[in-house]
Amino acid sequence: MAVEPFDVVDLIRVKRDGGQLSSAQISWLIDAYTRGYVADEQMSAMTMAIFLNGMNRNETRDLTLSMVASGERLDFSGLSKQTTDKHSTGGVGDKITLPLAPLVATFGVAVPQLSGRGLGHTGGTLDKLESIRGWRASLTPEEFYSQLESVGAVICAAGATLAPADGKLYALRDITGTVEAIPLIAASIMSKKIAEGTAALVLDVKFGSGAFLQDPERGRELAETMVRLGTDAGVSTVALLTNMNVPLGFAIGNANEVRESVEVLAGGGPADVVELTVALAREMLALAGHPDADPAAALADGRAMDTWRAMIAAQGGDPDAALPKPRESHVVVAEESGVLVRQDALPFGISAWRLGAGRARQQDPVQHAAGIDLHAKPGDPVTAGQPLFTLHSDDSARFERALEALDGAYEIGPAGADIHTGGPLIADRITA
Amino acid sequence: MAVEPFDVVDLIRVKRDGGQLSSAQISWLIDAYTRGYVADEQMSAMTMAIFLNGMNRNETRDLTLSMVASGERLDFSGLSKQTTDKHSTGGVGDKITLPLAPLVATFGVAVPQLSGRGLGHTGGTLDKLESIRGWRASLTPEEFYSQLESVGAVICAAGATLAPADGKLYALRDITGTVEAIPLIAASIMSKKIAEGTAALVLDVKFGSGAFLQDPERGRELAETMVRLGTDAGVSTVALLTNMNVPLGFAIGNANEVRESVEVLAGGGPADVVELTVALAREMLALAGHPDADPAAALADGRAMDTWRAMIAAQGGDPDAALPKPRESHVVVAEESGVLVRQDALPFGISAWRLGAGRARQQDPVQHAAGIDLHAKPGDPVTAGQPLFTLHSDDSARFERALEALDGAYEIGPAGADIHTGGPLIADRITA
Repeated sequence: MAVEPFDVVDLIRVKRDGGQLSSAQISWLIDAYTRGYVADEQMSAMTMAIFLNGMNRNETRDLTLSMVASGERLDFSGLSKQTTDKHSTGGVGDKITLPLAPLVATFGVAVPQLSGRGLGHTGGTLDKLESIRGWRASLTPEEFYSQLESVGAVICAAGATLAPADGKLYALRDITGTVEAIPLIAASIMSKKIAEGTAALVLDVKFGSGAFLQDPERGRELAETMVRLGTDAGVSTVALLTNMNVPLGFAIGNANEVRESVEVLAGGGPADVVELTVALAREMLALAGHPDADPAAALADGRAMDTWRAMIAAQGGDPDAALPKPRESHVVVAEESGVLVRQDALPFGISAWRLGAGRARQQDPVQHAAGIDLHAKPGDPVTAGQPLFTLHSDDSARFERALEALDGAYEIGPAGADIHTGGPLIADRITA
Repeated sequence: MAVEPFDVVDLIRVKRDGGQLSSAQISWLIDAYTRGYVADEQMSAMTMAIFLNGMNRNETRDLTLSMVASGERLDFSGLSKQTTDKHSTGGVGDKITLPLAPLVATFGVAVPQLSGRGLGHTGGTLDKLESIRGWRASLTPEEFYSQLESVGAVICAAGATLAPADGKLYALRDITGTVEAIPLIAASIMSKKIAEGTAALVLDVKFGSGAFLQDPERGRELAETMVRLGTDAGVSTVALLTNMNVPLGFAIGNANEVRESVEVLAGGGPADVVELTVALAREMLALAGHPDADPAAALADGRAMDTWRAMIAAQGGDPDAALPKPRESHVVVAEESGVLVRQDALPFGISAWRLGAGRARQQDPVQHAAGIDLHAKPGDPVTAGQPLFTLHSDDSARFERALEALDGAYEIGPAGADIHTGGPLIADRITA
């Protein structure tokens, strides 16, 4: 048996007492945890100590690189195209990846989007795309590389071989109340992105009621930490700090978010979804060496739609197939006339989740047609009796708890009242 | 399946964010942990959050009473005698329980001392007594009650039925770096003492280099917390705050500590051991309704020795049997003449442990004859070449690492130099 160079209880005590761990200590800790020498109960005490006492820049970098080292690294250097990736910290109605990946690929850039499934109130990109008949999330490495070369855009499931330490640690944090620690979030996201081998990365870091971190200053801290981690690891990284107080677009769910994404690719769609898609596309294209590209034009003239159709078809999907329809719907109307002054992202996300659009446990299926269609956004005038939003589910028994979640989630005020959206959609841009 | 009233992740978050847990939440948490519904990794995250964010008075009381409720409670109300118990937080050369229990029982008081084995550098009372030929630590409940009634003093192993939640939690804290938290220490000690059903309790809370908590102020905080917990639970509780910067007495080990205890019971023995034994006996006797008892007289006139002999014999031991002798000894002499100004308890405790007097793992045996005999104490004049202390072990290979531990552990100064003992032996007395 190999002699272990450290005692995990000593390392926990260092972090518990506000000290710093060395590179060698962090590297050993992550390796020993991955191979099961350090037990879950020891790692959870350590993550709580990290949650409460923090990690400095060097520790966070060491943690990230140790998680990268726990698994495989992809290598895109053989591709004829520059690769650029995007990651969002997740929000309500956040379907941006769907129009964004084909839009950027339209300019000859490779966009390898390894995505996840939804858990809790924020939706999963793969769950949304699986609304499309025939589309499959799993690709072999050969299919993945070939589609990047031919179509440019790939949205598919991440394999378990990238940063397996992160997978194990994330599952532990989820059941031990240590999810929302900035060094741990940053290391989790960036270890997977660095292992994916992308040359450039644009981060959409959200704040506000529907975001992971509600406080804008915490969002900024996370964005700055991740930009630094990416830059230090040789990945060109930029972050947009964006507002998630209001759901993005009019659709919250799965199939309805695909429909809305296709509207954007057809040159239409909600103003906020278009604004964020174009802003992120500009950042990705600039990092990929196309600072003068005009993504709005590629949405308007149908080029992005062509790439979307090719991307869906390459993964077995039928871009012309009808999307699933819900068995039951329930319309909520305005009780008074005036202006919609507030629409909180978090309760709408929870409501859509309760309708069946999301899952409570990793192994549960989702309902592809479940979700919410909004008919008005903050600032819109409304008339008493006018539909405000429609709930969809395959199971009408779910409406009651979904409506409960929406109690107090929106507000109609008199004409001219202040609109509560928490500021502009794109609050800031953070670079190295 | 019963519906659980709380979600453990929510409770962890409350404590993580500096909030307070309710009585119902703590009661559920300890019950759910004892029956395995709350996992070790969740409880270790909780204990780290408690370590770093503390527990208030009510939470500490609720934690203690929940651990009491996790198991059996003993009941001494059928005894014809008043019961009084003593607990020490542990130190180097701390054999006080051995002379103290028979001394107090001499006055017609029942002293039920449920004791443990040593782990790490502080010795275990049961390990020491097992040096006596034939003596056994395990008694049936009937033997235990009968001996309390006849002899008055019993020192035996605590069963696993008292506060089992504490046993499970202590093992977890030991491997997750969360041992030294005052609310957790206090709840651990007091849950067992309250479950033991004693009417009165005297605590010997140690501070200094050889103690669990080195800082006197932390020792005081622990003492105050435990006195409050005992009082709130209806147990008359007093604490002495005592100095553990220097080993207690001249013997550190097992058999040699029994020999020194017998010297005290014979009316002799080291001044510090006698002082602390008599002081603790006075407190116990006062709580048991004998404020005017004279324990020093009972040591001088042989009454306490008679009780000792009866106590040892009742548990199968032969009080006249020769104690085990070490196979190997190694004498360390003074390198210069002067006065012994410093003798640090912690390194002497570690050295005795390395000699075989203690165990590294719960299942290891101890060497009964291993340990250290001191030949001088701080303040004593010494002459170059005079023996300072003698190491004992059954295995001479252990001397090297035992001597390493003692590097810098003691100091000889010129005549008249300051003596470093960190103040008087009994620093304070803490009552409700």
